[in-house]
Amino acid sequence: MKNITVIGAGSWGSAIAHLLNKNSHNVTLFTYTKELAENISKNNENKKFLPNIKIPTTIEVTNDISKATTNKDIYVLAVPSVHIRENLNKFKPFLKENDLIINASKGLDQVNKTTLSEVIKEILPNCKVAVLSGPSHAEEVAKGIPTTVVSSSKDEATAKLVQDIFMNEYFRVYTNSDIVGVELGGALKNVIALASGISDGLGFGDNTKAAIMTRGIAEISRLGVAMGGNPITFNGLAGVGDLIVTCTSVHSRNRRAGIMIGEGKKLDDVLKEVDMVVEGVNTAKAALMFAKEYNVNMPIIEGINKILFDRDKTTENEF
Amino acid sequence: MKNITVIGAGSWGSAIAHLLNKNSHNVTLFTYTKELAENISKNNENKKFLPNIKIPTTIEVTNDISKATTNKDIYVLAVPSVHIRENLNKFKPFLKENDLIINASKGLDQVNKTTLSEVIKEILPNCKVAVLSGPSHAEEVAKGIPTTVVSSSKDEATAKLVQDIFMNEYFRVYTNSDIVGVELGGALKNVIALASGISDGLGFGDNTKAAIMTRGIAEISRLGVAMGGNPITFNGLAGVGDLIVTCTSVHSRNRRAGIMIGEGKKLDDVLKEVDMVVEGVNTAKAALMFAKEYNVNMPIIEGINKILFDRDKTTENEF
Repeated sequence: MKNITVIGAGSWGSAIAHLLNKNSHNVTLFTYTKELAENISKNNENKKFLPNIKIPTTIEVTNDISKATTNKDIYVLAVPSVHIRENLNKFKPFLKENDLIINASKGLDQVNKTTLSEVIKEILPNCKVAVLSGPSHAEEVAKGIPTTVVSSSKDEATAKLVQDIFMNEYFRVYTNSDIVGVELGGALKNVIALASGISDGLGFGDNTKAAIMTRGIAEISRLGVAMGGNPITFNGLAGVGDLIVTCTSVHSRNRRAGIMIGEGKKLDDVLKEVDMVVEGVNTAKAALMFAKEYNVNMPIIEGINKILFDRDKTTENEF
Repeated sequence: MKNITVIGAGSWGSAIAHLLNKNSHNVTLFTYTKELAENISKNNENKKFLPNIKIPTTIEVTNDISKATTNKDIYVLAVPSVHIRENLNKFKPFLKENDLIINASKGLDQVNKTTLSEVIKEILPNCKVAVLSGPSHAEEVAKGIPTTVVSSSKDEATAKLVQDIFMNEYFRVYTNSDIVGVELGGALKNVIALASGISDGLGFGDNTKAAIMTRGIAEISRLGVAMGGNPITFNGLAGVGDLIVTCTSVHSRNRRAGIMIGEGKKLDDVLKEVDMVVEGVNTAKAALMFAKEYNVNMPIIEGINKILFDRDKTTENEF
């Protein structure tokens, strides 16, 4: 039994807390929103982000950092990527040397043009770092549907520890030492999911979407290799596996947002309608910066940036 | 303008004839069944295999081999893989040296444990050979939905000729010289589609299916490399691209058959209900022979063989 705090009570954070609680760990679920913390505790359910799943009373839900860090040494980060820096800085005074931070968020850091685990190392240089990624929709994990992911760390013992913590009969964890590749796969697939959704929204077909996904993973792999990732990672669960689930599943927010954009809705209206963070939108912008920085050709990423951010500046015929 | 005969008036053969006719070629569609030939001609539609698509009167539909080979020098093979040998032997007396045979069928040859293009070379050693493969559901191609495929031949000029013949504004063709990899990708994905369907039929989720597909393409790639294919092919349109479309689309017969098996139906009943050839069933058996021949570990292929062919011999609890 480990003492673990999950930071972030969105869909994924809530599903992770639920899973770790099933695995008999001592789990705290932290959220900044007092209202959300009280709501989950009162209802034994996260009605907004993970409806119809019982959050057992054995999970402590709190918005108090001091409580969330008492007797804990393992933290799972599951917050929108734009809030990673702010979260780490707020937790920093409460953390001990060698505490383990497991990043379960998917996105890129625009400040230093780097991956999220690099941000963790920058802000918390004395903590251990790992990443959990793969095709794992929160809704399905919470229902106990068979799921596979990778636990990645440069330190093999850390990757194995994460594997031990998460593994159970329906949640299979493979270790992987290519943390850069794993994080890039998880982040960039959200942009390709937007593109796939746009294709669906325009009324194109499964043939079209398969083409976008295949060319999409090729782009992701090109950037990943330029940034030091292992090309084999992009053929695996954290690469094409996660891409497949995000581009084809009804659960995918990024794909859903893409469909609405493809149907002609404006980005602002789409984001209001989805009413949860659509990581692909921020990641699209960051990925374009990365592509320029590393001098990698990413035509789909470029196209998506034009559709997301330049559409209203152009005449309709240009699209 | 080229003079082309499409051999086989199933969904894919009919969609190819429709596409080549759009591209202004002189097209004949050949089928052994007199009744089907007359039916298509009379209705200007292939009601059973490609409903709601007009087959223009400029496409000659015939069951007469002599007619189908008069003034022709290019043939597209689109018949179930188990009928390839029989078809080639019947056409052989009518073919000329240097006629081009484009294989659009997806399967494996159980007789010589080889790919279908090898069977073409064996029976028609004086003909040129190419393969057309990729994520291309017939129904979508016939509707003009954007689709991408590869044209593969060891001879670059032949691959380019096929590209020229097929390419148009909605059908994009890339050339590729790895004919072994292209054919194995196209054949083996049907077995993984059965596995994905079975997962769906059992009530598992998108996470589960993504895991099967990711591990599936790894198996395909392992066998492909052992047989002389290029590992990069399996990351492309003829590999993971075709796998994605077949495992996720509603149009996929192999996936649909898998769903029914997952729901508990017997194989014979499923095949009767689908009432079209389910290539994955024969390919599963052949793939297991190939795996043994080339000494490659293929656990999903093995599992599917057990489910398909040994299920009724075991007690229910074993599955």
